[in-house]
Amino acid sequence: MEKTRKIILQEHEMPTHWYNIAADMPHKPLPPLHPATREPIGPEALSPLFPMELIKQEVSADQWIEIPEEVSDLYTLWRPTPLYRAYQLEKALDTPARIYYKYEGVSPSGSHKPNTAVAQAYYNKQEGIKKITTETGAGQWGSALSFACKHFGIDCEVYMVKISYQQKPYRKLMMNTWGAQVIASPSEKTEAGRKILAAQPDSPGSLGIAISEAVEQAATHEDTKYSLGSVLNHVLMHQTIIGQEAIRQMEKAGDLPDVVVAPFGGGSNFAGIAFPFLHLNLTQGKNIRCIASEPSSCPKLTKGVFRYDFGDTVGMTPLLPMYTLGHNFVPAPIHAGGLRYHGAGVLVSQLLKDKLMEARAHHQLECFEAGILFARTEGIIPAPEANHAIATVVAEAKRAKEEGTRKTILFNLCGHGNFDMAAYEDYLSGKLQEHELTEEEIQSSLATLDTPMIE
Amino acid sequence: MEKTRKIILQEHEMPTHWYNIAADMPHKPLPPLHPATREPIGPEALSPLFPMELIKQEVSADQWIEIPEEVSDLYTLWRPTPLYRAYQLEKALDTPARIYYKYEGVSPSGSHKPNTAVAQAYYNKQEGIKKITTETGAGQWGSALSFACKHFGIDCEVYMVKISYQQKPYRKLMMNTWGAQVIASPSEKTEAGRKILAAQPDSPGSLGIAISEAVEQAATHEDTKYSLGSVLNHVLMHQTIIGQEAIRQMEKAGDLPDVVVAPFGGGSNFAGIAFPFLHLNLTQGKNIRCIASEPSSCPKLTKGVFRYDFGDTVGMTPLLPMYTLGHNFVPAPIHAGGLRYHGAGVLVSQLLKDKLMEARAHHQLECFEAGILFARTEGIIPAPEANHAIATVVAEAKRAKEEGTRKTILFNLCGHGNFDMAAYEDYLSGKLQEHELTEEEIQSSLATLDTPMIE
Repeated sequence: MEKTRKIILQEHEMPTHWYNIAADMPHKPLPPLHPATREPIGPEALSPLFPMELIKQEVSADQWIEIPEEVSDLYTLWRPTPLYRAYQLEKALDTPARIYYKYEGVSPSGSHKPNTAVAQAYYNKQEGIKKITTETGAGQWGSALSFACKHFGIDCEVYMVKISYQQKPYRKLMMNTWGAQVIASPSEKTEAGRKILAAQPDSPGSLGIAISEAVEQAATHEDTKYSLGSVLNHVLMHQTIIGQEAIRQMEKAGDLPDVVVAPFGGGSNFAGIAFPFLHLNLTQGKNIRCIASEPSSCPKLTKGVFRYDFGDTVGMTPLLPMYTLGHNFVPAPIHAGGLRYHGAGVLVSQLLKDKLMEARAHHQLECFEAGILFARTEGIIPAPEANHAIATVVAEAKRAKEEGTRKTILFNLCGHGNFDMAAYEDYLSGKLQEHELTEEEIQSSLATLDTPMIE
Repeated sequence: MEKTRKIILQEHEMPTHWYNIAADMPHKPLPPLHPATREPIGPEALSPLFPMELIKQEVSADQWIEIPEEVSDLYTLWRPTPLYRAYQLEKALDTPARIYYKYEGVSPSGSHKPNTAVAQAYYNKQEGIKKITTETGAGQWGSALSFACKHFGIDCEVYMVKISYQQKPYRKLMMNTWGAQVIASPSEKTEAGRKILAAQPDSPGSLGIAISEAVEQAATHEDTKYSLGSVLNHVLMHQTIIGQEAIRQMEKAGDLPDVVVAPFGGGSNFAGIAFPFLHLNLTQGKNIRCIASEPSSCPKLTKGVFRYDFGDTVGMTPLLPMYTLGHNFVPAPIHAGGLRYHGAGVLVSQLLKDKLMEARAHHQLECFEAGILFARTEGIIPAPEANHAIATVVAEAKRAKEEGTRKTILFNLCGHGNFDMAAYEDYLSGKLQEHELTEEEIQSSLATLDTPMIE
């Protein structure tokens, strides 16, 4: 064979540190505020929910943080992940652009989520924690944490949004197979759940409610902590192993991307691949465009405001400086469940504010069209979340053709769609509908905010 | 890290030829017989169904057959596949045995099946074929062929057993996503289907009926051929890339297996990993035990007879010399759908007859117990078929512990269980039942045979 399709790293070439972009940012993120007093809070405020080592990482100013041996060791179950040159997609698009993708779907749970789940379970184990609670919507995060907890011998309790629990039984079964307890939320198990059920016995649940239940369990039980799959700084940092590997792989390919693209939900997917490239921009004068791809039905980066807001719907979490549509915003039930979140993580929000990255919004139909093209050329059927990045890549590749430029595009294929085939059926059968979000809907959600403004 | 978990090959290290074990067998397989005249038939009898190049491979005496460039090129979408050292499984079993597994679940459709699907689609394309028909039960084979046909621009028509079509909608949708037409069998589309439906309008279908429909469509339409996912010599040969890679990887690990294990349905899974090791036995005086693991509810290798029999239920195919439970045998509806076949491929049958390989049968419950242990230690949730091999491996590892021997065991982890979570639910909820096949049931199936005896 003349050409190499996959650029493969050996285990000993795996990065040894996570990258903390906070160290390199020209404007550091603003501090979180107490939900009630609205005064800046310190890291100790997080200690009922998280182990100290993760809290230290959350506020760390160090540029690099060493990956513990036991975490690295478990990473090797699926890492380093392959980097592909998308020859067949390039051909189908008839583009002069070179397209590469980093494939995170080779992990046991099928997405990038175990990169942080393993790290979080490890630090909890180190501090003697016996149980971790979390919430999950579509199920990617819950299954990643179930897998990680099983390895370290920690009980895992997942509050799964009731409607997802009913509609995605395979994701629930995957968590059970790894030994986790999965509870349809709202549940009778928590004060928060019981309150909701008393008011609305047939509540389909929401991510906001599930977070409340998981947080309550952690806050009220000794030896129990809570875990989050995106948004927070330490979560984003754990994902930077993706981009660091990609840099080494691009070097082996003798290429460097002009554009880096990733889907955007809370930020961990985007941070994972893009932050190490932004490091090259911030410290070595490179000029690599990093683009976050979000659904046009949940456009916090392209249409939200930069303002303090709550991480949850109920308003229990600290106030964070973020691009947000307002914590009361209810996104349309698109198939990319992992991108249905009202706000963006703090680090990404500051980077966008400082114009150090870009964002694009895509309609659901455009995303599935791109995903089907990808499946029929490159073979892998992508997760609906990943289709957003592919839509951006297709647009960039078409532009390269129009302009006659030979740019290099890299994107994060964050997971496979094996558990999302119902979404593809909706698309193929013509049932998939677009939710046209109006400016009025966004404004009416933002109008409910009474949280502090910035500047 | 001190130890390497995965042994990874680069694309340029991928084998360039398929291995044809027929060249090295001390006793060559007996010829196929015409279903009506019961006289030996030549390769030309297969030409209505298969392209000439595949027929040549079916009867080839060459030891090695070169893999065409376009096939190798598509293989690189997922090949070479990783070879893992199962450190965590070893630890859980507290065994002195070293356990390795070759992981074929990284292919786009999630199993080893694309290794032959790609080759078959390629040769059909070369001979101007416009459409390929096939049957599928659980859906692994149908989805592999759908993926391969899409790449080479061939229409793919899959007759899917109606009960599976209804119970496994995600597999059907996967095939649709790759552009295949999936038809619930029995269907109104064929003479065979119409006949069955006239007699039994609510027939749940069977693999035998689906084969009849697919074969009829190929035989009665120009530019249309038929394709099979196991049993035949050329299909088994295409899979030998698995074992060849494994040998190179074991060499890199500085180890060589004492025992090689694979699940057994029609033979392609077992042949894929074991034939290249049997080559070492047959030509270099090695003494590597190769064990086929079958369900105790469909025990053709351990309880069947070596005799001429039909490949299908209706009796349309040539008579093949095989270990069989009789073509009228109806296996219990176990979850390992890919192992529910009455007979063994010709090459494997002759090898077993000549005691050059071994076979083991396992109960379904034992297999799922082993599969859960694997998922909770090694992370990957295996396909139910793969669990049979794991059950054999666990038994061998326990024996090594009892005997205090430090043997090396390698097995083929042929696919992931992402589409089989309902089977795990049955196991975890205690609903999974064992079907105890009696000697009487086997004898009564064999008593219906009037096909030629051997010896």
